[in-house]
Amino acid sequence: MNEFELIRTFFARQPVSRADVKTGIGDDAALLRPPHNQCLTVTSDLLVAGVHFFPDVDPVSLGHKALAVNLSDLAAMGAEPAWFLLNLTLPNVDAAWLEKFCQGMFDLAREYNVQLVGGDTSRGPLAIGIEAHGFVPEAMALRRAAAKAGDRIYVTGTLGDAALALRHRREEIRLPERDFAAVAGQLDRPTPRVREGMALRGIAHGAIDISDGLLADLGHILEMSGVGARIFLDRIPVSDVTRRHLAETGWETVLAGGDDYELCFTVPDNNVAALEKLKFACGFHRIGEIEAVPGLRVMDESGKPYYPKATGHNHFAEK
Amino acid sequence: MNEFELIRTFFARQPVSRADVKTGIGDDAALLRPPHNQCLTVTSDLLVAGVHFFPDVDPVSLGHKALAVNLSDLAAMGAEPAWFLLNLTLPNVDAAWLEKFCQGMFDLAREYNVQLVGGDTSRGPLAIGIEAHGFVPEAMALRRAAAKAGDRIYVTGTLGDAALALRHRREEIRLPERDFAAVAGQLDRPTPRVREGMALRGIAHGAIDISDGLLADLGHILEMSGVGARIFLDRIPVSDVTRRHLAETGWETVLAGGDDYELCFTVPDNNVAALEKLKFACGFHRIGEIEAVPGLRVMDESGKPYYPKATGHNHFAEK
Repeated sequence: MNEFELIRTFFARQPVSRADVKTGIGDDAALLRPPHNQCLTVTSDLLVAGVHFFPDVDPVSLGHKALAVNLSDLAAMGAEPAWFLLNLTLPNVDAAWLEKFCQGMFDLAREYNVQLVGGDTSRGPLAIGIEAHGFVPEAMALRRAAAKAGDRIYVTGTLGDAALALRHRREEIRLPERDFAAVAGQLDRPTPRVREGMALRGIAHGAIDISDGLLADLGHILEMSGVGARIFLDRIPVSDVTRRHLAETGWETVLAGGDDYELCFTVPDNNVAALEKLKFACGFHRIGEIEAVPGLRVMDESGKPYYPKATGHNHFAEK
Repeated sequence: MNEFELIRTFFARQPVSRADVKTGIGDDAALLRPPHNQCLTVTSDLLVAGVHFFPDVDPVSLGHKALAVNLSDLAAMGAEPAWFLLNLTLPNVDAAWLEKFCQGMFDLAREYNVQLVGGDTSRGPLAIGIEAHGFVPEAMALRRAAAKAGDRIYVTGTLGDAALALRHRREEIRLPERDFAAVAGQLDRPTPRVREGMALRGIAHGAIDISDGLLADLGHILEMSGVGARIFLDRIPVSDVTRRHLAETGWETVLAGGDDYELCFTVPDNNVAALEKLKFACGFHRIGEIEAVPGLRVMDESGKPYYPKATGHNHFAEK
């Protein structure tokens, strides 16, 4: 099978067909019609075998996650997703593997009505690059730099399950089978908070998705907004499983583990009533406040400062 | 140096600043303002070390080429380039290498006023993925599927130099040093035919950029347009160096070598006068005609059919 047959077989029969796609896969470039009076929002993320995922990962999950992490970035801008491109390097053409990868990717694409419009495939070490496009009215975009002193800080869902599952898979800890089953889905098939991000338009100030850990990602909001924050360990939402293992793992798995793909966002006092009217299936919790004084202060259950041993993921940390 | 410092150091100080970029590098996603009444054109290309380039390639050339091949795809749609994203996996952070890579990439970006607005970096095997965005009025876009029987077929520049240089570098042939120096630039720093593609709006029917070799890429036009073609070896423009080595390399290096990044386009009779008024610094030559009968017929210098031994590049060919 040659490259072009491969593209046709697996990627051309995708499930979504949008009216704003004038030319999709198959020409030198896609031709797309963004809506008037909105900003185009563009993001891209790379997943590299051996760095971001185990080479023997379930391909359905990999296809899901590769798209989900990009939709999560759009969600953090309050954007509505529309199109994506896929760049795939494969050591060889394995039809069964590709079938499953596409299943995971296209099931999620169908759910969010996002159409594959282009990309590139090549022989090479297994890696997936996806670029996702969406729209948001310019004045409604949720920017990292928009947090203000006095804002309340919230997160969607719960934090730490993905990091707990990863530590088990890396054999750093050993979870009972039932506990691992309960948290593995957060690691393998995260749900991008697209509806939640769009609902926060006009309500939230700053927003980010938590991919590198709460401390690192909230840290980006603080740095770009020129503010500080105080958060409280006893308000950070965690699942029952993650809570049961806290004594063993420490709070670092929750604060700095990453891969949560929940939203962290800040809301001014006068928008709190509007926020509280929103119904999120994943829930949301207030974890602290934005303060004028720079720095991120973590308070433990007894109200004393807590000093985390790790602060988040860094792909290029010195070893 | 951590990932974020790396991004800041090398990619944030880029040379282009466009008014239609509302938020560039540094948020969850870029916020961009496409013009009204035009289509957004999006393409992406991957370059993988050991597949598309030698791992010890000059990083200035690599930075140039990674962006050039994407601008070439936009050129083949008749689009005006605007923005790009960069996904880079690096085995380690080598500041001197990155400095040179950025120099090659940003020098070209400056020339075409195209702004880096986002991307992702990760540790991993050396690979570069670029997504480029541009605009073209929908009715003016040059599509592969638009060739019609009776159209004249043209190519810009000359073909075969890049393939000749590659064969020398792979030690399949041995060129005199002066000859290699004369053709290496076509391989290492191809010029995307952006101005030419834009000038062909309203004149050309079908168009494609020649990345996989003339036969393969013209073949895409024929297949997608449901037509055939006849081309003539003695009309195919080649440099003096490539012509001198034709006896040794055969026409396959010119027809199927790839990496030319010239445009192949078709023009109806009644637009030929308008075409001939255009001044392209790289020149353009008529090489044949589109015909109703499917198939690509190559005629040799004596007017007899020529049967090429190779037809173009395939990343996943059976070994």
